Amino acid sequence: MTARRERTVASLKRPLLAVTMGDPAGIGAEVTLKALHILRRESFLPLLIGDFGHLSACARRFKVPLPLVRSQGPEGARRVGPRVGVLDLGGAKNMKWGRVSAPCGAAAVSYVKKGAWLALEGKVDALVTAPIQKEAIHKAGCPFPGHTELLAHLSGSRSFAMMMVGGPFRIVLQSIHVSLKDSLKSVRRDLVRERLGLTHRALARWFGIPRPRIAVAGVNPHAGEGGAFGQEEIAVLLPEIRRATRKGWRVSGPHPPDTLFHRAAKGAYDAVLCMYHDQGLIPLKLLAFEEGVNLTLGLPFVRTSPDHGTAFDIAGKGRADASSMVAALRLAARLAGKS
Amino acid sequence: MTARRERTVASLKRPLLAVTMGDPAGIGAEVTLKALHILRRESFLPLLIGDFGHLSACARRFKVPLPLVRSQGPEGARRVGPRVGVLDLGGAKNMKWGRVSAPCGAAAVSYVKKGAWLALEGKVDALVTAPIQKEAIHKAGCPFPGHTELLAHLSGSRSFAMMMVGGPFRIVLQSIHVSLKDSLKSVRRDLVRERLGLTHRALARWFGIPRPRIAVAGVNPHAGEGGAFGQEEIAVLLPEIRRATRKGWRVSGPHPPDTLFHRAAKGAYDAVLCMYHDQGLIPLKLLAFEEGVNLTLGLPFVRTSPDHGTAFDIAGKGRADASSMVAALRLAARLAGKS
Repeated sequence: MTARRERTVASLKRPLLAVTMGDPAGIGAEVTLKALHILRRESFLPLLIGDFGHLSACARRFKVPLPLVRSQGPEGARRVGPRVGVLDLGGAKNMKWGRVSAPCGAAAVSYVKKGAWLALEGKVDALVTAPIQKEAIHKAGCPFPGHTELLAHLSGSRSFAMMMVGGPFRIVLQSIHVSLKDSLKSVRRDLVRERLGLTHRALARWFGIPRPRIAVAGVNPHAGEGGAFGQEEIAVLLPEIRRATRKGWRVSGPHPPDTLFHRAAKGAYDAVLCMYHDQGLIPLKLLAFEEGVNLTLGLPFVRTSPDHGTAFDIAGKGRADASSMVAALRLAARLAGKS
Repeated sequence: MTARRERTVASLKRPLLAVTMGDPAGIGAEVTLKALHILRRESFLPLLIGDFGHLSACARRFKVPLPLVRSQGPEGARRVGPRVGVLDLGGAKNMKWGRVSAPCGAAAVSYVKKGAWLALEGKVDALVTAPIQKEAIHKAGCPFPGHTELLAHLSGSRSFAMMMVGGPFRIVLQSIHVSLKDSLKSVRRDLVRERLGLTHRALARWFGIPRPRIAVAGVNPHAGEGGAFGQEEIAVLLPEIRRATRKGWRVSGPHPPDTLFHRAAKGAYDAVLCMYHDQGLIPLKLLAFEEGVNLTLGLPFVRTSPDHGTAFDIAGKGRADASSMVAALRLAARLAGKS
C-alpha cells in the first residue's frame, strides 16, 4: 500500500477541516479551542489556521486542555496524532481584547484567504471560519462586508447564498443585512430563481436528498391572501414556483409565513426559502438558539461558520459559548468533500 | 339574603361568558360545542348566542353530548343547571356548509351585536366570539373587516389593538392584515405610543401585573444595527421607549427581533410589541400552534376569540380542532369582569 493510498483511505474516514481563528481580539480562538476539545473524539482532523502563540495562550487562559502543535500545512495535520495542528500565520501579537484594529483585521483576512486556497486546491475537505469583524477588515483594506462575499470573490462564485442550519430547520435567506424595507427589493424573479437553484443543488449534492422538498415562504401576512394585501406572491413567487415544479422539482408555496414554520419544524420540508432575514431567523433562533450554523451555498467547497459574531463585549473573559462552533464543525465534517 | 345578592356572589364565583356562534356555515358552532363540552366542569357559565336549531343539530351531528336549552337572556343562563343556555336569534335555517351567504353573514353580525350589548350593559362578564366570514358580513351590509372593528364601533372605542396570547407569549401587533410594505406605515410614534398604552393597561388591569415588562421589537434585522440598515428604531421606537420609561414604565428595546423571542419564551417579558403581523405570529404559532387566543385591547369589556377563521373547507365535517376555542373561553373566564 503506497503512502498516497494510505492517505486517501485515511481521508475517506477522517475528513480534514481547515478552521480559521477569526479576529484575534474576539471570541474566535476561545470558541474554536473549546469546540475542538468537546469534539476531540469525533472523526475529523482539524487544521487550525491562525496565530500559534495566541492560540496557545488562549488554551492556557481559558483552561482548554487541547495540545497544539505547529504544522507546516495540511499534510502535516495528518501526522500530529492527538495534537491539533496549527498553521501559524501570526498576526495577533499586539491585539487588545475587544478592540477593533487594522492588524487584527488583516490577520483575520489572511487566515481566511489561506483556508480558502487550501479548500480550492482540494487540500482540505471543508472550511470552518470563526468570526471576523467587519470594521476591522475594512480598516485593513478588505472591501467585503463579510466572509461570504470574500470567499465568493476568492473562488470566483457569482451566485451564492446563506443557509442557516439549526434545530429542525434549514433556512435560506433571500436577503440578509438590509433594512426590512430594502429587503423587499430582493424579492425579484431572477434572485428567487437563483436561490431556489442554490438550495436545490445543496440539498441534493451536499445533503444527499435526491428530490428535496423546498417550501417558499410568502412575503406578506397569509401570503398576501390572494392579492388582498401584497402582490409579491402573485407577481414573483408563484411564477418561479411553477417554473421549478415544471422541472420536476418539489417546490411548494408561497406559504403563509405564520403557519409554515410549525409544519417545517415537524419535518414537512427539507428547506425553507425565506423572503427576509427575520422571517427565517426568528423561528430558527427560537428553536435552536445556540446551535445555528451558517452554510454558504454556491462555493466550490463546503464552508460553515457559527452564527454569532466576534462578541467583543465578552472577548477574553472565558464566557463564550462554543455550541454554535461545535455545530459548525460537525456539519462541515458531515458534508466534507462534497462539491 | 336577597336574590340580587345571591346572584352577585354566584357571579363572583362563576363568571358569565356570552359566546357567539359565528357564521353558521363555518366551524363556529362545532368548535364552540366541543370546547364547552371539554370545559363543562370549569367554573364559568356560558350563554350561547346563535341559532338554537342549528346548535342542536350540530350537537347531534358532531356527537357532542352537551345538553342545550333555550334561554331568554343572561338571567336565564344562571338557572339552567348543567345545561347550556342558548339565546336563540335564529338565522341559520338555509345555511349550506362552507358557503358564503348574506343571510349567514347577517346572522353572525346579529349574534355579535347582541353579545356586545350584553357586555356593554354589564349583563355578561366577557364576550367570546366564534369566527365570522368577512365576505359574508360585507354581503350583509356590514362594512367592517372583522370583529375587532365592529366591536370597537359598537362600543365607541377609538384606539384598540389585538393581543395574541399563546404558549409563553403575549404578543401585541402594530398592524395586522396589510402587506409587509404597508405595515411599515404603522410604525409611527403616535401609533407606537397608543399600542404601548393599551398593552400596559391590559397587563396591569386585566392580567394583574402591576409593573409589566414590555419588550419592543425592532423593525429591521439586528434592530437596524445603529442605523446601518433602517432608521425606524432611531426615529420612532427609541424616542417612544424613552418616553415610556420616563413615566416609570418598564419598557425595553428596540430589541433585535431574531433573538428577542428566545428570551420572551423564557419569561423575560410580560408582553412583546411587534412591528408587523408575521414578526409576532411566526414565533407564536411555532410554540402554540393550536392554542393561540386573540384578546382585543381597548374595549370596555373583555373579548377573546380563537385565532382561526371559519375554515369553510372543513365546515360540517366534524374535523375542526377546538383547542383555540378552549383557550379563548379559559382566558375570557380568567379575565372576566375586568374593564
